[in-house]
Amino acid sequence: MKHAMKVLDAGAKGVYLITVTPFTDGGALDLASTDRMVDFCLEKGVTGLTVLGIMGEAPKLTAEESRTYVKQVLARVAGRVPVVVGVSSPGFAPMKELAESVMALGASGVMVAPPGTVRTDDQIAAYFDMVNETLGPQVPWALQDHPVATGVQMTAPVILRILKNSPTCVMLKHEDCPGLAKLSAIRAASDKGDLGAGRRVSILCGNGGGLFLPEELSRGADGAMTGFAYPEMMVDVCRAHAAGQVERAHDLFDAYLPLARYEQQQGIGLAVRKHLLAERGVIASSAVRKPGPKLSAADVADLQRLVARQTRRLAELG
Amino acid sequence: MKHAMKVLDAGAKGVYLITVTPFTDGGALDLASTDRMVDFCLEKGVTGLTVLGIMGEAPKLTAEESRTYVKQVLARVAGRVPVVVGVSSPGFAPMKELAESVMALGASGVMVAPPGTVRTDDQIAAYFDMVNETLGPQVPWALQDHPVATGVQMTAPVILRILKNSPTCVMLKHEDCPGLAKLSAIRAASDKGDLGAGRRVSILCGNGGGLFLPEELSRGADGAMTGFAYPEMMVDVCRAHAAGQVERAHDLFDAYLPLARYEQQQGIGLAVRKHLLAERGVIASSAVRKPGPKLSAADVADLQRLVARQTRRLAELG
Amino acid sequence: MKHAMKVLDAGAKGVYLITVTPFTDGGALDLASTDRMVDFCLEKGVTGLTVLGIMGEAPKLTAEESRTYVKQVLARVAGRVPVVVGVSSPGFAPMKELAESVMALGASGVMVAPPGTVRTDDQIAAYFDMVNETLGPQVPWALQDHPVATGVQMTAPVILRILKNSPTCVMLKHEDCPGLAKLSAIRAASDKGDLGAGRRVSILCGNGGGLFLPEELSRGADGAMTGFAYPEMMVDVCRAHAAGQVERAHDLFDAYLPLARYEQQQGIGLAVRKHLLAERGVIASSAVRKPGPKLSAADVADLQRLVARQTRRLAELG
Amino acid sequence: MKHAMKVLDAGAKGVYLITVTPFTDGGALDLASTDRMVDFCLEKGVTGLTVLGIMGEAPKLTAEESRTYVKQVLARVAGRVPVVVGVSSPGFAPMKELAESVMALGASGVMVAPPGTVRTDDQIAAYFDMVNETLGPQVPWALQDHPVATGVQMTAPVILRILKNSPTCVMLKHEDCPGLAKLSAIRAASDKGDLGAGRRVSILCGNGGGLFLPEELSRGADGAMTGFAYPEMMVDVCRAHAAGQVERAHDLFDAYLPLARYEQQQGIGLAVRKHLLAERGVIASSAVRKPGPKLSAADVADLQRLVARQTRRLAELG
Repeated sequence: MKHAMKVLDAGAKGVYLITVTPFTDGGALDLASTDRMVDFCLEKGVTGLTVLGIMGEAPKLTAEESRTYVKQVLARVAGRVPVVVGVSSPGFAPMKELAESVMALGASGVMVAPPGTVRTDDQIAAYFDMVNETLGPQVPWALQDHPVATGVQMTAPVILRILKNSPTCVMLKHEDCPGLAKLSAIRAASDKGDLGAGRRVSILCGNGGGLFLPEELSRGADGAMTGFAYPEMMVDVCRAHAAGQVERAHDLFDAYLPLARYEQQQGIGLAVRKHLLAERGVIASSAVRKPGPKLSAADVADLQRLVARQTRRLAELG
Repeated sequence: MKHAMKVLDAGAKGVYLITVTPFTDGGALDLASTDRMVDFCLEKGVTGLTVLGIMGEAPKLTAEESRTYVKQVLARVAGRVPVVVGVSSPGFAPMKELAESVMALGASGVMVAPPGTVRTDDQIAAYFDMVNETLGPQVPWALQDHPVATGVQMTAPVILRILKNSPTCVMLKHEDCPGLAKLSAIRAASDKGDLGAGRRVSILCGNGGGLFLPEELSRGADGAMTGFAYPEMMVDVCRAHAAGQVERAHDLFDAYLPLARYEQQQGIGLAVRKHLLAERGVIASSAVRKPGPKLSAADVADLQRLVARQTRRLAELG
Repeated sequence: MKHAMKVLDAGAKGVYLITVTPFTDGGALDLASTDRMVDFCLEKGVTGLTVLGIMGEAPKLTAEESRTYVKQVLARVAGRVPVVVGVSSPGFAPMKELAESVMALGASGVMVAPPGTVRTDDQIAAYFDMVNETLGPQVPWALQDHPVATGVQMTAPVILRILKNSPTCVMLKHEDCPGLAKLSAIRAASDKGDLGAGRRVSILCGNGGGLFLPEELSRGADGAMTGFAYPEMMVDVCRAHAAGQVERAHDLFDAYLPLARYEQQQGIGLAVRKHLLAERGVIASSAVRKPGPKLSAADVADLQRLVARQTRRLAELG
Repeated sequence: MKHAMKVLDAGAKGVYLITVTPFTDGGALDLASTDRMVDFCLEKGVTGLTVLGIMGEAPKLTAEESRTYVKQVLARVAGRVPVVVGVSSPGFAPMKELAESVMALGASGVMVAPPGTVRTDDQIAAYFDMVNETLGPQVPWALQDHPVATGVQMTAPVILRILKNSPTCVMLKHEDCPGLAKLSAIRAASDKGDLGAGRRVSILCGNGGGLFLPEELSRGADGAMTGFAYPEMMVDVCRAHAAGQVERAHDLFDAYLPLARYEQQQGIGLAVRKHLLAERGVIASSAVRKPGPKLSAADVADLQRLVARQTRRLAELG
């Protein structure tokens, strides 16, 4: 049975967690772990899920596996929170095919990052005109600004130009670094009505994997879209901040920061995240598909120490 | 009916043409033009075909379109020459799926380039160990060395290391630039028996789109694997060279060089090639899928002049 | 004695040759060869010289050597043609110091390329505002657009924006590839008066080392700024084209193209150029400073064949 | 008077601080602030200084300014700790000139990073053979491994190969990320005697600007070489760790981590550092030379909050 889906809209806030894709030790999709992971995220208070992103090992899945995984997530979520699906692609035909297929399965919207081949302001803007043409007038989408991964630098004016040209773009996934000035500029333009009367854009942040979350919330971000083995960090920081408890938000953030920093090391971060999720009992295996990193005994020892310290510090904070 | 396929082997020589993927003006696959293109290539004397490469707009096709196109090409070729299919992929599961699928359809072998994420010698060698594991012991494959597109620099010693570790790698598609020294080194090692007793590797070149073909043949290349709207250039140059007519090979090459240089401009080269193929009556439409280049009136005028001059010069040469 | 210098202005046309820096076999500056090289260029008909560019091994010279070399060139030129000096630098203090120093020595103008750290349209435009501030109102300068070397993509609108903001920028060194569309756009804007009443910009081309010269002249380029061991090629092509003999210009160009293509291989091109200049008796040694390429016996044999064929073909053309 | 200089050797440990270059508001070198900064660093317990690095705005200084600044630092240090000078350069002649000049002024050693043009293992190793030839047998040097800045990936085996070929290379500045596995491998090889009987290498870390210091010390690093407006953090963490107080080292590190993370944002980090040093009274002006970042009022407010929180947390820790 397909559940009434939630449509992604510009009012989105809180934490859209970027999920891992659980595999068995042998490397097959692990659907039981997928269900447990969905339950875990919802229990921790996430307000949305994002699947088939880079940290979801999307490019390592076959087309059939991608569909199976998305179906399983959507069935387990059962309409309780919106689910966004990454559809970035070097070609518009595959993007269209994937977007139509996941929307038909019940996704709430899609997310698109520019390919590394667009460089200048005009090329970037023209690319997203083609994205709008590809997705059509019915599919809400999120614009992913992630220069470290894409190599594409989009200034605040260019992002505003894209937003103005894109009636169905309801969200910015902001992960430029340094990015606070850009975030302030886009939030101010959205607040001033530059996007059109009554139009706003949801801004969810993922800069450095959430490593600037308290500052981003102070600059007007609506929440976070990123991954971390402790999604309750982002949830609790967002809640404290929304309640006006800014110092409390920082206290919580700081308690998790040493581990978050360790998990955000490019190249082994995904292995760290899956190891921690397996330790927490969320997924059965920490397996990452090849080519991918493995943790050493020394890495595992580092994590044990950091988790123990984090647990202690959170207990102190109460 | 499936024809007895030719298996790709280390004796491959001559011209393996990298085909374009013909579309209608509306952007749909054009299977009638596909058939005409296959006939045209075989009439001009190519000894193999390579499909789903970058210049074949492979990333812009849906999975279903890719299969349809490969099937059509294989059916039309009907076993007369080997057909190689590009299967480079950011993940091994999709690579395995595509390789198995095209081999089942009757392909002769596959081609793999490294992803931009591998950088050091050890990473490169380890990557191709995983490629061997993925393709298994039955699928002959070609190693694509194309740093301009991949960003991966593979030295001659690294390529030899890969070849030694890869019993089923039968061909090097050489397109590093400058690349003549590397080509000499690999050919010498292959001739000396460094790859193992009785083992050689076929080396087909594509440096700059064939812009160094006569020199490459003198260094021991077995032929060319690249695209050009006038495949007879490569065929005739290879034949003259093989017949010991080196100056004649240069004469022919030089006659085509002004146009080949123009077609090899990165970014608009594919539009040039499709324009010329449409002018020659091979394909019905010069359409390139978005995002892609378009020719201006001035570009078309340049091509008219260059084709007219080429025709004159070839007549002079007789 | 300092000669009356020629000031670089927007009327510049013909061939501004990018010179090599001659060394002795031992690697020291070779000032006698420097003099011979200047004489050679002027005899062949170049209308300007450009020194301290990338192909001049500028970064491998000490500050003292740079000054010595520039002085020697200026003394030998003795005001007969303008001399442009490359002053691109990661910092504005060193750029200012070098520009003031070479202008004081008698240079005609300077040339600036953007650093790889500027990426967006606004960053590029802001960078050249600072260049104007650095160079002041007296120093005429050329804007170098060379994405392959700098990684910076400047669209035609951005270049026009820079030109409008830069009263002392009198020249565009155009070497984007593909670049013909950009060249047409900038020439059209300059002709229409978009740069201001009565203002034009000189456009000299170097795309691929002059590999598109006839087409560039047809699009309105004023000439070439690049290097080649046979500067008479560029001079004669420009003269024929200016005289309305477009087919003759192509004939000449085509005769040199096989060798020019060989010399333009990135990485060994400079070694090829110095080898040919030494063979022609212009410089005493073909030495390139480390780290730098060396030619093999096979490379030298390739060059012998290509030069012999070029000589024959030129004789045929008369 | 020139003081007896300390020679850089493989026994180096503790904190080699990468200094900023203080300017006046008008952008001139500020030598009084330079003296105060040296005093500040030594009071805080650094065991060495590194000047003319990237964060020292070295490329924005004229040659004369560089000499003036190095002289001033050396005079003020007066032989109390070793001073290392960055001499990375695109050419060996300028590298030799700068290295000889600073050693003559009393520097303790130099530091070299590879240029972005070397890519393969063999190219990297060959490059450092030329560095050894350039520096000669008397100048101790540090190898800088900083892929984010250079684009050059040096594996542990390649670094060991360089160390074996370089009798005068006494130190590795380790700042690859993720880098803990590489650090473990190199320390193990050094301990096992792989570098030669009785030979070791000092390893100072700067990964992410010291963001992994406690873990690096546990893997056998000898200390840190990086910059931070609170050098006492690195000093105290190293001391606690050396005293076996690992949890204490983590406690101290964690207290500074939120601010360190903020200061390590690429692009505005230097402006943050100079702002904090000016606030602490170390330097008179926070001016960064163009092209460079500026802080907004919101950035300054972020810093005020982070410094206040850091002060509170350090007081809690005692």
